[in-house]
Amino acid sequence: MMNAPQHTLNLSPLDIAKNLAVQFAKTAAERDKVGGNPKVERDLIRQSGLLGLSIPQQYGGQGADWKTIFQTIQTIAQVDSSIAHVYGFHHLLIATVQLFSQPEQYAKWFEQTAKENLFWGNTLNPLDQRTTAQQISENEFIFHGDKSFCSGSIDSDILLCSGFNEAGKLLIGVIPTAREGVSFLGDWNNMGQRQTDSGNSHFEQVKISKDELLLNPGPLSTPYSSLRPLIAQLIFVHLFLGVAEGAFETAKETVQSQKAWSKSLAEHAVNDPFTQKHFAEFYVQLEGVRLLANKAVEKLQEAWDIGESLNAEQRGEVSIAIATAKIAATNTSLFVTQNIFQVMGARATTAKLNLDRFWRNVRTQTLHDPIDYKYQEVGEWVLTTKVPTPSFYS
Amino acid sequence: MMNAPQHTLNLSPLDIAKNLAVQFAKTAAERDKVGGNPKVERDLIRQSGLLGLSIPQQYGGQGADWKTIFQTIQTIAQVDSSIAHVYGFHHLLIATVQLFSQPEQYAKWFEQTAKENLFWGNTLNPLDQRTTAQQISENEFIFHGDKSFCSGSIDSDILLCSGFNEAGKLLIGVIPTAREGVSFLGDWNNMGQRQTDSGNSHFEQVKISKDELLLNPGPLSTPYSSLRPLIAQLIFVHLFLGVAEGAFETAKETVQSQKAWSKSLAEHAVNDPFTQKHFAEFYVQLEGVRLLANKAVEKLQEAWDIGESLNAEQRGEVSIAIATAKIAATNTSLFVTQNIFQVMGARATTAKLNLDRFWRNVRTQTLHDPIDYKYQEVGEWVLTTKVPTPSFYS
Amino acid sequence: MMNAPQHTLNLSPLDIAKNLAVQFAKTAAERDKVGGNPKVERDLIRQSGLLGLSIPQQYGGQGADWKTIFQTIQTIAQVDSSIAHVYGFHHLLIATVQLFSQPEQYAKWFEQTAKENLFWGNTLNPLDQRTTAQQISENEFIFHGDKSFCSGSIDSDILLCSGFNEAGKLLIGVIPTAREGVSFLGDWNNMGQRQTDSGNSHFEQVKISKDELLLNPGPLSTPYSSLRPLIAQLIFVHLFLGVAEGAFETAKETVQSQKAWSKSLAEHAVNDPFTQKHFAEFYVQLEGVRLLANKAVEKLQEAWDIGESLNAEQRGEVSIAIATAKIAATNTSLFVTQNIFQVMGARATTAKLNLDRFWRNVRTQTLHDPIDYKYQEVGEWVLTTKVPTPSFYS
Amino acid sequence: MMNAPQHTLNLSPLDIAKNLAVQFAKTAAERDKVGGNPKVERDLIRQSGLLGLSIPQQYGGQGADWKTIFQTIQTIAQVDSSIAHVYGFHHLLIATVQLFSQPEQYAKWFEQTAKENLFWGNTLNPLDQRTTAQQISENEFIFHGDKSFCSGSIDSDILLCSGFNEAGKLLIGVIPTAREGVSFLGDWNNMGQRQTDSGNSHFEQVKISKDELLLNPGPLSTPYSSLRPLIAQLIFVHLFLGVAEGAFETAKETVQSQKAWSKSLAEHAVNDPFTQKHFAEFYVQLEGVRLLANKAVEKLQEAWDIGESLNAEQRGEVSIAIATAKIAATNTSLFVTQNIFQVMGARATTAKLNLDRFWRNVRTQTLHDPIDYKYQEVGEWVLTTKVPTPSFYS
Repeated sequence: MMNAPQHTLNLSPLDIAKNLAVQFAKTAAERDKVGGNPKVERDLIRQSGLLGLSIPQQYGGQGADWKTIFQTIQTIAQVDSSIAHVYGFHHLLIATVQLFSQPEQYAKWFEQTAKENLFWGNTLNPLDQRTTAQQISENEFIFHGDKSFCSGSIDSDILLCSGFNEAGKLLIGVIPTAREGVSFLGDWNNMGQRQTDSGNSHFEQVKISKDELLLNPGPLSTPYSSLRPLIAQLIFVHLFLGVAEGAFETAKETVQSQKAWSKSLAEHAVNDPFTQKHFAEFYVQLEGVRLLANKAVEKLQEAWDIGESLNAEQRGEVSIAIATAKIAATNTSLFVTQNIFQVMGARATTAKLNLDRFWRNVRTQTLHDPIDYKYQEVGEWVLTTKVPTPSFYS
Repeated sequence: MMNAPQHTLNLSPLDIAKNLAVQFAKTAAERDKVGGNPKVERDLIRQSGLLGLSIPQQYGGQGADWKTIFQTIQTIAQVDSSIAHVYGFHHLLIATVQLFSQPEQYAKWFEQTAKENLFWGNTLNPLDQRTTAQQISENEFIFHGDKSFCSGSIDSDILLCSGFNEAGKLLIGVIPTAREGVSFLGDWNNMGQRQTDSGNSHFEQVKISKDELLLNPGPLSTPYSSLRPLIAQLIFVHLFLGVAEGAFETAKETVQSQKAWSKSLAEHAVNDPFTQKHFAEFYVQLEGVRLLANKAVEKLQEAWDIGESLNAEQRGEVSIAIATAKIAATNTSLFVTQNIFQVMGARATTAKLNLDRFWRNVRTQTLHDPIDYKYQEVGEWVLTTKVPTPSFYS
Repeated sequence: MMNAPQHTLNLSPLDIAKNLAVQFAKTAAERDKVGGNPKVERDLIRQSGLLGLSIPQQYGGQGADWKTIFQTIQTIAQVDSSIAHVYGFHHLLIATVQLFSQPEQYAKWFEQTAKENLFWGNTLNPLDQRTTAQQISENEFIFHGDKSFCSGSIDSDILLCSGFNEAGKLLIGVIPTAREGVSFLGDWNNMGQRQTDSGNSHFEQVKISKDELLLNPGPLSTPYSSLRPLIAQLIFVHLFLGVAEGAFETAKETVQSQKAWSKSLAEHAVNDPFTQKHFAEFYVQLEGVRLLANKAVEKLQEAWDIGESLNAEQRGEVSIAIATAKIAATNTSLFVTQNIFQVMGARATTAKLNLDRFWRNVRTQTLHDPIDYKYQEVGEWVLTTKVPTPSFYS
Repeated sequence: MMNAPQHTLNLSPLDIAKNLAVQFAKTAAERDKVGGNPKVERDLIRQSGLLGLSIPQQYGGQGADWKTIFQTIQTIAQVDSSIAHVYGFHHLLIATVQLFSQPEQYAKWFEQTAKENLFWGNTLNPLDQRTTAQQISENEFIFHGDKSFCSGSIDSDILLCSGFNEAGKLLIGVIPTAREGVSFLGDWNNMGQRQTDSGNSHFEQVKISKDELLLNPGPLSTPYSSLRPLIAQLIFVHLFLGVAEGAFETAKETVQSQKAWSKSLAEHAVNDPFTQKHFAEFYVQLEGVRLLANKAVEKLQEAWDIGESLNAEQRGEVSIAIATAKIAATNTSLFVTQNIFQVMGARATTAKLNLDRFWRNVRTQTLHDPIDYKYQEVGEWVLTTKVPTPSFYS
């Protein structure tokens, strides 16, 4: 909970993100091996002021548009997609509150967040029904149980959490992370996105008051509130794109100083026809994804600006634009992160460089929900004009 | 040489193109088989007023921006890429004159073109050096010899032609197609783009006066004049995209009334998972190409607007944007036109529908110059920042 | 109905097929355009003696193994996949009779076929239920109605035909093509496989006696008899492979005399790195398909040799081996026939060469039944060990 | 240096390899993380008797054919490609001695190897010229300097080493690993193949006698001796194939107990159409690679059996068969190890399972030499019939 230092105030958000990326890049390879919570880097983000980007100006935030927010996520993902993930989810959680509740309720949270650079964390996973939400009085609820895939929970300041009540309804609350009974198992140890703290949380008889619950209009209750999962998906798109761009830059720099293979018609690798073609393939795909992502961001912004009157058809178009970008970003990020090695050669496999983290990160994050069913949704829409039914994955 | 009928004057160019497409679609399958010169359709284009789109307003044209021009090409290509090709080349030739010569010279040509809806034709092929250009007096030249790949030459009103002088320099002239000594062999009979009249021309001692030659600044003499081949390449991009979109629409309509295969989990083809995924693949690729093409058009327009002060680096960026779009459009148009059959099934192969023309058209036109060397140019630029050296293909 | 001329008797079947291929190649491009019935070539096949390959020796045939039969089909398909198709189907029909009936019944047909070099034709299509089979006495049936997709029917000597009786059961008969009431509409005009005569037949009150019906054991009645559709599928595999090989050879010969593109690091096309890589891709895929096809043939031969005691599991393994080969052959034949143009360049598109026929032929024939459901069958078997349920497509 | 225990003597080599694989599988995921030398597993290989497979029977070995040897490598690679690599290289080194020297010289080494189950190690890398070989007397040489990429060097019993003399000629020696002056830096720490000990060696004034040098006929001196690098390449093919098979099996078992995604038309993952198609794609590719590898092994065995009279053309055909298999194995192993995650889903990314090791292993090993130049070799041969010039990579 720190204030943004004076010297960053005159920089654009994108420049701030670039500066952070320079910092993060120095230790990204090493931190990926260690895993765990990137406390130092999280504090640098707090200090940067970027956590206030998505907070409307009337609450002391910067009220940035979505394009700016996604650019900062993408920029950080170029060097560290774990931090980019939890940073992006911070903004997703701010948006979630705006979509699922009313200004009267969230004004104070946003003001405090903007003022103190609070970092929001996620313990929401709606597929995991182990946490119960029991109403014990008119205004009091008890959340109890476990919750998995809680990205960004550890070292957060405010927590979005969820539980199911007796009727099977999902209740979502906003509480200080320090609330009594909340604990994190610190058990995230996966092959990619290793510093996202996406492990299990435990809620031990946690008291939550009614005015901490997002009940009006509540989760996915309207086309507008149903933009929430689409924002999550579009964060993934920018993670994939950023990682692919980072891998591309690394490969480019590596090849620029290499000799061509002994049998090449060229002397230097940059003049080798096969190497040139590989880089062109990378570039053409990346350009396509950048444009598809931009278009999806524009569609989202339009829908966001319409607000509560957004209808199902309009929401569906955003959904299709984002699914389209996600399919392309998934394929391209896997393609680029796998094939950079073919141009860099055997010496690029040294653990010191840890360049497999690019692939491990996108291979892990692209599995959030099956890409086959994004194809299915887009194909069904093409053939029948039926837009995807809103859910926490569509 | 006809005037645009009154009733089209209130329609946008895109709407006019759509109306033409509706007309052309009725006979496209049949005309593809017949080949030869689509005289009726060429006259409909003359009547439509679209030939004046690229003529600046001071000469009586519409002075449309490149976006509008390319949209009309793409729209016509959705149903007939032969006509779209020669129509696009008409605008290319208008632009060629603007890039290779001065207003004093071309004003009268443009005025006449706008007034009489003249259709320009192409006998330029700079790779074919069989036509000689001999200067016989201060102001007179004789063009003599043959020229191949003369798309749009037959039934044209004005002709851009080229010959090589004794010093091996390429001279480009603008003459009435009716000029004595000019003839066309009508020998274009290829597997695709069958109504482009891209066969051989013959110049039998054709007299061309000096003020019909484009000498100031002349072909590819400056970065700005070197935009010419890029416009040609971007026309190809819109041909490929248009054809792919036409194929996609045809496949979609076909599938919408089909039963799924007997072993499918779905009853109707539109609900078959494999069919849905194929269409999503088509759509995602098409969306990417559309955006890459748009970006390339914007880059071209910017460079066009800069004019003669355009520098080599700026021209190079346009070149890369167009090469990028061309690679994607080539791959996507081949992918879509080949794989629509997999969703439509065996009955779609009947010659009556002639649906293989989509593939034959893009397979033919994508060979204009080897796509491998577009990859090579883009890859070299990525690795070395060297932009492609201007030529009639780059 | 001709006898094999003396001079071919000492050649191996494969050499005979190669000789035929040399003949057929001379006119294949031209005949593809014309379409219709290749009477001259069909008679050359009759004269070659190859029609007796699949007839067991006790009936005067050559009793060749399946490997030999498929090699001759593949060899002919390298230059003319229409003729290869109807030639392959001749052997399929001979096998059908062996699988669906008993020696006592088919002995005379086989003896006559071997002696007179009869060509069998197909009017079987079990998906088309328009032909009825009505029993009018103990030994007499009337077939009446239409039948589509009758490959090889015109100019055949013996016909395999089918109709549905009142109970909806498929009855298959063997009759002389000249039987009264049988006629062919000659209406096959599709984008590929244009000389297969795969159009409609009409049966006008055609009398068929009971001893002309294949009732013991009848169609697909046992695992052994269910080898029939697998043989059909494996003929397709060899058609696809042959066409791809033909396209590959054509491209190779074309490129061997070409200059490399002006921007290449090599002078001759054969030394251009991109061209070399394309050909390696073609070759590696073709080699894979050749080996998968060989393995499938071996599996089929083993099952054929087991005979009536073949169990469902053993039949299923043949089915999977053939489906596997078919998936690879489909993908490879489309890939090769599409991409040969990229190495040959624009001049290869001239209608005189008619090189698009390679693609048109495989694109048409690969649609016989949807390849997606071959993937489905193989995938289901991998995951559950369930072999495909026998049908006329599996 | 242990004797094979009695109980394995009656098992086939393939069964012994399967038993070893069962053992190795238990700890493979964990050992991959730790890296370093797999001493326990190396001793199990010593005890298994498999190290004598490639030793001719007259020297006490088993004189197995190449098919058997490669099968054991592939089987071990299914669970642990690091151990499979150094085990395969043991046989490569035995073959190297046979190809580069005469029986009189290697008889005693082979007898000792067979008797004592010695494990051979590699410090040969001919691209690294840092080790000098100085002749100090008629029969004595001093090897001095460093050598990189020494797979299987640590814990070996006999070492193949190399140095360059003043004339720049490569000298190869065979010495006990315990020879004074030989040391290993233990510095292999790469993203894949982590237990191959492929780090640096140091030779500190190491004395090697003339009769320990392989001078007759010496390295790559004849077509026959030039089979050596082809054997190395074919070992890689079986490593890639084995890893892909291991990944495939893991994915299959994982999916067999999973529910399908909530939007699937199927309940269980094994019946989900997309999942089925993915597995079919894996299977079809794997089958192709298995057959291409088999064919390459047969070609190698034929050439091996021909012996010293092998000519350049015959050696070239083996080279092409192996390059073909390597291209396919490279593509397939990358495809399968990347895409198994798409069918297994997010939970398969847990570090406990360590399933990314499949991809990391093939991604690392496939970079031994650039696959683009295997395409180049095959393409050049297709177009010109020129076989690859023998080198340590071709």
